Amino acid sequence: MTAIEDLVTELARLPGIGRKTAHRLTYHLLQQSSSQSTRLAEALVAVAERVRPCGRCGNLTESEPCAICADPGRDGAVLCVVEDAASLEVVERSTGFRGRYLVLGGRLSPLEGVGPESLRLDLLAARVAEGEVRELILATNPSLEGEATATYVQQMVADRGVLVTRLARGLPVGGDLEYVDGVTLAHALRARQEVP
Amino acid sequence: MTAIEDLVTELARLPGIGRKTAHRLTYHLLQQSSSQSTRLAEALVAVAERVRPCGRCGNLTESEPCAICADPGRDGAVLCVVEDAASLEVVERSTGFRGRYLVLGGRLSPLEGVGPESLRLDLLAARVAEGEVRELILATNPSLEGEATATYVQQMVADRGVLVTRLARGLPVGGDLEYVDGVTLAHALRARQEVP
Repeated sequence: MTAIEDLVTELARLPGIGRKTAHRLTYHLLQQSSSQSTRLAEALVAVAERVRPCGRCGNLTESEPCAICADPGRDGAVLCVVEDAASLEVVERSTGFRGRYLVLGGRLSPLEGVGPESLRLDLLAARVAEGEVRELILATNPSLEGEATATYVQQMVADRGVLVTRLARGLPVGGDLEYVDGVTLAHALRARQEVP
Repeated sequence: MTAIEDLVTELARLPGIGRKTAHRLTYHLLQQSSSQSTRLAEALVAVAERVRPCGRCGNLTESEPCAICADPGRDGAVLCVVEDAASLEVVERSTGFRGRYLVLGGRLSPLEGVGPESLRLDLLAARVAEGEVRELILATNPSLEGEATATYVQQMVADRGVLVTRLARGLPVGGDLEYVDGVTLAHALRARQEVP
């Protein structure tokens, strides 16, 4: 196997990148100065070596604890439970949320062999036991597995005196009614809000 | 800048990969074992360090000369002129071509400051001067710049007693007449072939 084929194979392992795209990317990199490939390689190695889950919340971080856990300005009374660090990133980037997080590290999926013991439910239980948390926002994905995970967490913290909330379901902003799936539309109708 | 942001930035430099996709790829890699990132990094470094243009034809190679130039079974009388190594790869993969190649390393583009001196026209002239080449197949891209490059090469080798040919233009196989652009259709009509 040549170095070129090798790089094509490695790039094609990435999600959404087929062999044809991997080829195109490889030849693009070959046409750039070799410093671009080298910088990308260094960035990959740095991520693989330095990024670890935070011991307190499960977020991916280079420091221990992560920047969010270390931030004294965050409201520890509101804990947002997400499936993975990518979800956390999206919530951070798009909302003004100033509470804290708990990254489960996946979602319940019996078909893929992911049971409760694979998730960071011990970290979650410890956080709730600390007594500071007043509200638990379940921000798992709106998928079957995400729902199941949310339900599991909800039952786990039942009668701990913690308010459990979910992200609202409804029409995506900027979406078109015609293209919205029926389940979402039914949700949106049921949760309809009074115009002020 | 954290290691994660750094990797996102480097991935987003690749063509066709925006920041959103770069994010997705980064978090995908973070969820895999770190060996996947490391293997990709190694493949990038290997390509950057080991792959060089062949001194004889300009093809990208780890050996000198490249495997095609070194292959005694190739027909040196037919020389296929392509813009870059990616084009060579496509011709190799999809056609039964058994001649040799000359990789120009680009195409004439005054707007991007690419003049004849930037292309491997010296290698091409040397190959033609050797006297073995009987046919020069101009396989530059069917774009404005590709056409200009082909015309330039054609004039360069005029009255050297070499047959100069072009890849046929016409309807793409599997295409639909309705979606073919007018220029291609006009080409296809002009170059119509008798049904045997």
